Amino acid sequence: MRKYGKEGVLQVARSVWDSITSRRNPSETMAQADIALIGLAVMGQNLILNMNDHGFVVCAYNRTVSKVHDFLKNEAKGTKVIGAESLEDMVSKLKTPRRIVLLVKAGQAVDDFIDKLVPLLESGDIIIDGGNSEYRDTTRRCRSLKEKNLLFVGSGVSGGEEGARYGPSLMPGGHIEAWPHIKDIFQSIAAKVGTGEPCCDWVGDEGAGHFVKMVHNGIEYGDMQLICEAYHLMKDVLGMDHDEMAQAFDDWNKTELDSFLIEITANIFKYKDADGTHLLPKIRDSAGQKGTGKWTAISALEYGTPVTLIGEAVFARCLSSLKEERVEASKSLSGPSGSTFSGDKKQFLEDIRKALYASKIISYAQGFMLLRQAAKEFGWSLNYGAIALMWRGGCIIRSVFLGEINKAFDRDPELQNLLLDSFFSNAVQECQESWRRAVSTGVQQGIPMPCFTTALSFYDGYRHDMLPANLLQAQRDYFGAHTYELLSNPGTFIHTNWTGHGGTVSSSSYNA
Amino acid sequence: MRKYGKEGVLQVARSVWDSITSRRNPSETMAQADIALIGLAVMGQNLILNMNDHGFVVCAYNRTVSKVHDFLKNEAKGTKVIGAESLEDMVSKLKTPRRIVLLVKAGQAVDDFIDKLVPLLESGDIIIDGGNSEYRDTTRRCRSLKEKNLLFVGSGVSGGEEGARYGPSLMPGGHIEAWPHIKDIFQSIAAKVGTGEPCCDWVGDEGAGHFVKMVHNGIEYGDMQLICEAYHLMKDVLGMDHDEMAQAFDDWNKTELDSFLIEITANIFKYKDADGTHLLPKIRDSAGQKGTGKWTAISALEYGTPVTLIGEAVFARCLSSLKEERVEASKSLSGPSGSTFSGDKKQFLEDIRKALYASKIISYAQGFMLLRQAAKEFGWSLNYGAIALMWRGGCIIRSVFLGEINKAFDRDPELQNLLLDSFFSNAVQECQESWRRAVSTGVQQGIPMPCFTTALSFYDGYRHDMLPANLLQAQRDYFGAHTYELLSNPGTFIHTNWTGHGGTVSSSSYNA
Repeated sequence: MRKYGKEGVLQVARSVWDSITSRRNPSETMAQADIALIGLAVMGQNLILNMNDHGFVVCAYNRTVSKVHDFLKNEAKGTKVIGAESLEDMVSKLKTPRRIVLLVKAGQAVDDFIDKLVPLLESGDIIIDGGNSEYRDTTRRCRSLKEKNLLFVGSGVSGGEEGARYGPSLMPGGHIEAWPHIKDIFQSIAAKVGTGEPCCDWVGDEGAGHFVKMVHNGIEYGDMQLICEAYHLMKDVLGMDHDEMAQAFDDWNKTELDSFLIEITANIFKYKDADGTHLLPKIRDSAGQKGTGKWTAISALEYGTPVTLIGEAVFARCLSSLKEERVEASKSLSGPSGSTFSGDKKQFLEDIRKALYASKIISYAQGFMLLRQAAKEFGWSLNYGAIALMWRGGCIIRSVFLGEINKAFDRDPELQNLLLDSFFSNAVQECQESWRRAVSTGVQQGIPMPCFTTALSFYDGYRHDMLPANLLQAQRDYFGAHTYELLSNPGTFIHTNWTGHGGTVSSSSYNA
Repeated sequence: MRKYGKEGVLQVARSVWDSITSRRNPSETMAQADIALIGLAVMGQNLILNMNDHGFVVCAYNRTVSKVHDFLKNEAKGTKVIGAESLEDMVSKLKTPRRIVLLVKAGQAVDDFIDKLVPLLESGDIIIDGGNSEYRDTTRRCRSLKEKNLLFVGSGVSGGEEGARYGPSLMPGGHIEAWPHIKDIFQSIAAKVGTGEPCCDWVGDEGAGHFVKMVHNGIEYGDMQLICEAYHLMKDVLGMDHDEMAQAFDDWNKTELDSFLIEITANIFKYKDADGTHLLPKIRDSAGQKGTGKWTAISALEYGTPVTLIGEAVFARCLSSLKEERVEASKSLSGPSGSTFSGDKKQFLEDIRKALYASKIISYAQGFMLLRQAAKEFGWSLNYGAIALMWRGGCIIRSVFLGEINKAFDRDPELQNLLLDSFFSNAVQECQESWRRAVSTGVQQGIPMPCFTTALSFYDGYRHDMLPANLLQAQRDYFGAHTYELLSNPGTFIHTNWTGHGGTVSSSSYNA
């Protein structure tokens, strides 16, 4: 039983009084807001304005209250957005069941606000965490708030500034009892695709929404790294200048690669500084990251799913951040000698495009493998087609491509792997010659291509019914008595005394 | 304060009595054993026989006591090894300070035995965990046993059956106060290299010993996968038969690749079944794993160190284990069309060897990067040269190569990266042309080479003072207002309003 200080007791009394008054007279000015949002950084501000555009009355709050005043005076000027001076004030202005969105830094800040809100709320009120929380935290918060009779939703929100403002992709999961109360708001503000389908649907129990968002971010890491590798090949193998590269990406955006990231990449190539020169080459090549890519790769390892491309994309950012060490290394480590590209430049540019497309197919196949494995681990029933549709618009990885993935799951909701769908297997088949040419040329030219190459290795591994792992199993049994199976008798593990003088005791405590 | 049941109280009384009697008369037959070992699986049995060979009296115990009797009747027949019928019996037979080695399954079993032992032991007694425990568990156990005035050592033990029996690599860490009491036993039974230096030295505080062992195992995963990729290229590109491959590995074992894993690989190629045919091709290509490789890759991600090769090796095992799915995929996914090798076979075999050697250098460079980062994270002071020496003999990755790494750290104990040492930078330089040829040929031939290719991508990335991550930073700032640095002004993060219509608020809560 939680203890309250004097102030806490007053808070509880206040919230009880508010709930009574709001129930007695819901239309009174005290309870006028449809939803509250805490955290007025760029995403929070834009989500509020988006909700306002769709006719919802939003109450804005921020720990540093001056931010609320600034927001109302500036960005929110002339809207129906109202502000709150305190959490108690905010709660008092909400219709019941209260809907409160947190858009604060993932981690402790979320728990802190939840702890402050709990004594102010009543049974059935809804707390929605729209930050990039770790899915395990969301599962934990679901469980602890259920005990307090409060509903909790952990929702992935993607789309950056623009998305939040004009239509993000929303991936809500948690207590499904909350869904009827937030569905209308969520689906109204979400991005729309095709004939107006919203890029928002209920994902699943507990941390499912944040898990799906995490995988989205991991895939985003992969997409971005793939574009960087294409850029590196264009720049250093084909010697293209910024205008030529901008043109290439504009052209690519009219192909199967049509996507937000390809589009903004073209714009980035075009962008010029105040001094009229391109900004891109002046930017430091040291990539930051805030964790969700890492979490995806760690989950892949934990659940034994070979999500190699995202793993390489995360490590590529780590390597890029070792800037000083690379500068030092560049003085002593040489590349291939006297290699200049002598092939057909136009053809090679198309090879790069197809390498990017094929690698992207592998990355998404791996991402959905991870979703399928997580669903197994946690007993979630995920609708893969719906997830593809949620990602189809609004979010950073939005693309025509995701429409094709959605169709693949329409063709076969039980599809085990994207690569087993005819559209994607044909697409890879059609790309593979170019893909191999791009990679082998890059290898000869000394261009790092961690994601192009790992994607190709995965494809070549996945399509081999027989891999050299039989040797690996023999080695493990040779030195560690780990036992192995025979092809002719799977499921039965046997040990061979390879040396003749080793024992025949099989290993149980030793791990390798 | 822990509670005891009736039995527990009796145990405490018994242990107090034993400790009194053993102190009163240490030479009495009650306390005759130098050390006890719990867990009579293959590693435990062999370690006991090894200690016995070096003149130590070992008391053997196993939860299933019948195993003790069998061991004494068979493997330990005619030795000085004594058995124990219970933990109390075992403890009563030990000289003080008592030294007890646990070689049980990592995880709960270790905690269970520790809990059973604590009431039986007295201040200053030493518990040694020789299993593959997770380093965080070892750190936790160090702390909790310190409160009980007991000494705890978490020691990596590598070498498999043979190593344990005739000289393993031992990597002890934890309470350094225990080292003087176990150093003699540990260094006597450890493998010896050069002029008799033991492959065992004190690693560091808390979980340092198990962390180093974990990285050892991760590197082992990498070495094994590299050999598998060489095998795949020999088999499918050069069409070599088992005798030719055995010969190649025998030859390689006389080069810089001279190592235990290359040696046993040659033996595996030679090994024939009772029916006179080679065993290797009958073994199921589905690799098992027990976690330590996974943990290494996860640590690499957690600490932001690009240990890409171990990551790929772990994922390669995951992919191999999807046997049924691969068999299914092999029916619909095609490889490169009409590609047969037309080059110089002898030359290409040497290309494969050099690709393996260069990739191995990258893998060890990455492994030591991780050790360095962990030392930073945990405030451990690790002696990298000593670690190379511990791995030089006895363990699964033992090799001439590790002697070179030891020398590199002798040349410069502060060496930031192996690739910055002249021996290794020259070695890679000498291999590079072959390495690129092996990889680009394998790519054209459709051979999966996740580790050969990730190693090359790391090398090419590490030696580039400028990577395409500037584009990645531009993208992150474009869609998420994540800010970026200018090359001309590192440390200062700025945001550009790329679209002209986006806001200028920089991101704080949104993570991508």
